[in-house]
Amino acid sequence: MDVITWLSAALGPEAVAAGALRTDPAELDALRTDRSGWVSPGRPLALVSARSVADVQATMQAATEFRIPVVPRGAGTGLAGGANGTDGAIVLSVAGMNRILEISPEDELAVVEPGVINADLNAALRPHGLWFAPDPASRAISSVGGNIATNAGGLLCAKYGVTREAVLGLSVVLPDGRLIRTGHRTVKGVTGFDLTALFVGSEGTLGVIVDATVRTLPLPVGGVTTIGALFPDVGSAAAASARVTASRLRPAVMELLDGPALERIAVFLGRETIEAAMGASGGAAFLLVQFDGLASSTDAAAASELIRASGGAVRVSADAAEGERLLAIRRAFHPALEAQGTVLIEDVSVPRSRMPEMFAAIRAIGEKYGIVIPTVAHAGDGNLHPNFVYEGDDVPDRVWEAAGELFRTAIALGGTLTGEHGVGLLKRRWLAHELGADAYELQVKVKSVFDPLGIMNPGKVFG
Amino acid sequence: MDVITWLSAALGPEAVAAGALRTDPAELDALRTDRSGWVSPGRPLALVSARSVADVQATMQAATEFRIPVVPRGAGTGLAGGANGTDGAIVLSVAGMNRILEISPEDELAVVEPGVINADLNAALRPHGLWFAPDPASRAISSVGGNIATNAGGLLCAKYGVTREAVLGLSVVLPDGRLIRTGHRTVKGVTGFDLTALFVGSEGTLGVIVDATVRTLPLPVGGVTTIGALFPDVGSAAAASARVTASRLRPAVMELLDGPALERIAVFLGRETIEAAMGASGGAAFLLVQFDGLASSTDAAAASELIRASGGAVRVSADAAEGERLLAIRRAFHPALEAQGTVLIEDVSVPRSRMPEMFAAIRAIGEKYGIVIPTVAHAGDGNLHPNFVYEGDDVPDRVWEAAGELFRTAIALGGTLTGEHGVGLLKRRWLAHELGADAYELQVKVKSVFDPLGIMNPGKVFG
Repeated sequence: MDVITWLSAALGPEAVAAGALRTDPAELDALRTDRSGWVSPGRPLALVSARSVADVQATMQAATEFRIPVVPRGAGTGLAGGANGTDGAIVLSVAGMNRILEISPEDELAVVEPGVINADLNAALRPHGLWFAPDPASRAISSVGGNIATNAGGLLCAKYGVTREAVLGLSVVLPDGRLIRTGHRTVKGVTGFDLTALFVGSEGTLGVIVDATVRTLPLPVGGVTTIGALFPDVGSAAAASARVTASRLRPAVMELLDGPALERIAVFLGRETIEAAMGASGGAAFLLVQFDGLASSTDAAAASELIRASGGAVRVSADAAEGERLLAIRRAFHPALEAQGTVLIEDVSVPRSRMPEMFAAIRAIGEKYGIVIPTVAHAGDGNLHPNFVYEGDDVPDRVWEAAGELFRTAIALGGTLTGEHGVGLLKRRWLAHELGADAYELQVKVKSVFDPLGIMNPGKVFG
Repeated sequence: MDVITWLSAALGPEAVAAGALRTDPAELDALRTDRSGWVSPGRPLALVSARSVADVQATMQAATEFRIPVVPRGAGTGLAGGANGTDGAIVLSVAGMNRILEISPEDELAVVEPGVINADLNAALRPHGLWFAPDPASRAISSVGGNIATNAGGLLCAKYGVTREAVLGLSVVLPDGRLIRTGHRTVKGVTGFDLTALFVGSEGTLGVIVDATVRTLPLPVGGVTTIGALFPDVGSAAAASARVTASRLRPAVMELLDGPALERIAVFLGRETIEAAMGASGGAAFLLVQFDGLASSTDAAAASELIRASGGAVRVSADAAEGERLLAIRRAFHPALEAQGTVLIEDVSVPRSRMPEMFAAIRAIGEKYGIVIPTVAHAGDGNLHPNFVYEGDDVPDRVWEAAGELFRTAIALGGTLTGEHGVGLLKRRWLAHELGADAYELQVKVKSVFDPLGIMNPGKVFG
């Protein structure tokens, strides 16, 4: 019996008739990539669209029996190739497992299947006065399971934390098909090793998450006040954001656009749009700061003083529509780049105090390789996204060389080669450099505890 | 050569002359216990008082060479026997590694050696407008390394998180003496598995933490408002705390004392002390709620309404001295019990909505075994400390039987057998019941990745 026949029998004729098992080459080819644009060579063997835990277990049992690699996949919105379907693998999609199983307003938690879209969960929580804090830019299209698999970040992390802090427990199907539960429905708990945290950010290399118990937070009370500021150079913008952090003010959002980024946005939106929002134009860097909560307007006033003292031309508004127009400048960054070519979005993170050095390094590396590298930073937490724009499907060699220098610089500054996108396929060649040989070896051994046959998303994260 | 000779040579004559290596039986006997009062049988082989990473590495190399168990120990304030010196083991004390290596106000982090006392770190951070949020009741005497090893909680967790959320990175000496670094100096990072989180709460079973990079928070601005409330029964007090949580108010502290607890405190402090603080006496349960931040007084007013509606007789104060008098009622709980005999402090956690059921179960189990079980709960996060008072050194069998029923009940309610004290020696026999056989087996295998010889705190956590 071959694996397809086995899988058909295990999933059952009804599920197969409904399309749970697909082998159409065009469909399979579409699974070879994600939002990074990176296309894996070869072709997956099959796609299983799981609708239940039993479907996931059947798939893993088949994979174990036939020693076939499995690539778990959610919404396919990753930026590091972690869910790309690889040659000869079964792609196990949990996108169809998208039910919200429970919302407990009393315990301030939700239990969800992995395919639930982040924004859909938040829409369901809102009537209860709650929200799910992980806030990747992809929240309208990315799934909670994918957020967990990559320990997703976003704009709000300095104040509200990363995904790991929002996950209380998981149900996971192991590579051999067994189902385990980790964690608790409680805020506290210290029984043995924290396997929940081990699965968060594991990029599908340890098992398949089939449900998640997530912590929710009360919606902030009070208003939102937004600051936009134009600067003569990125250095003074970075200094301004550092002063805001050092003042112990706690913005919900603090985003920094450098000169090349702002230039492209001005071309994309039109300079008059920026001028209408800011009441000014020009400037070679842009800082967007947003405060929420009861003190948002006094906090914003205090932050504005610091920003002005750093050379920023400031616009402050507590009006929602005006705030939205300021935020729209930041939001236009990725569309503006995509209008110019293929984009490689990089994702380094450094201690906040080292951001000016990282911006200087980005400029120097760009000059060395003859590339302009428009960059946006989540300045509240030191996470920078340097972007490379090029033509065609393949990342040019010199772009990878420049990216490699960026990674080494971030690590040398006490940072990391990925703040929130993950390692996937695109960064595995640099992973050992960051971790060191001993920690890398331990990680590989930890993987083999869960996945002794090496069938769980092989080739991802670890070379 | 024997291990003592080897260790003497490795630590060096100066260190040995200064007392780095001790084999005096009385000193070793003192290491067989911690604040739980549980005394391990047999006697440790030696005590190494490490002053440097090199001392720790030398000790682990000797232990590996001679296949001798090592028990890492900090301040010795644990409540589960996790750092108890066991028969024939080397106790490796890091209490003397107590330097604060760095405070970075810009990056809002500190780098500390493991022996730094929690309260000392906070005293050093205060001038920078920062604090270290993990707040175990033992903060004046417990070390940051111990807080990390047990993922310590405390009174402030519902609002400010547990220790895991405060640890960015670690340096760890592995059982074979190698030094690894985990994590980052950044808020974000997703390079491979989260080994930092794996070490948090690992109770010395994976390696020896030799430094920690911890996240700090800005000190809350605004005042503190405290509520004390007396109730006719614990059920209405639990209902009141549930209403406060459900209202989306976010107290910094919310502590609940049941009838037997309040009774013993009244005996210990004198009823007139409670009456002076509360302006009332009587009552068979006590709720203490504290709000901080800019809205503390309006939040407290809103919470007071909910508490009154649940039958509480309320005293509210924004005055520091009055607030302290209310808090003193809660603080008297443990001294009041210790005045009556030997105390076993238990530590279950349940989802907040199940607290009334857990309180009812505690009473029923107490009646079944003919034991009164005074209980305090961190009501904001569902963590209950049922206490057993008995005479003599050994926990009576019926106390363990009653405790076992408490653990099974907490697990059945969706909770855990330890919220913040850890498993150590005292709870290992129940661990597999909570985790399930498959997860337990995975945990044991994860341990063996780090500790293939089984010399790292053997017998702790895992049976």
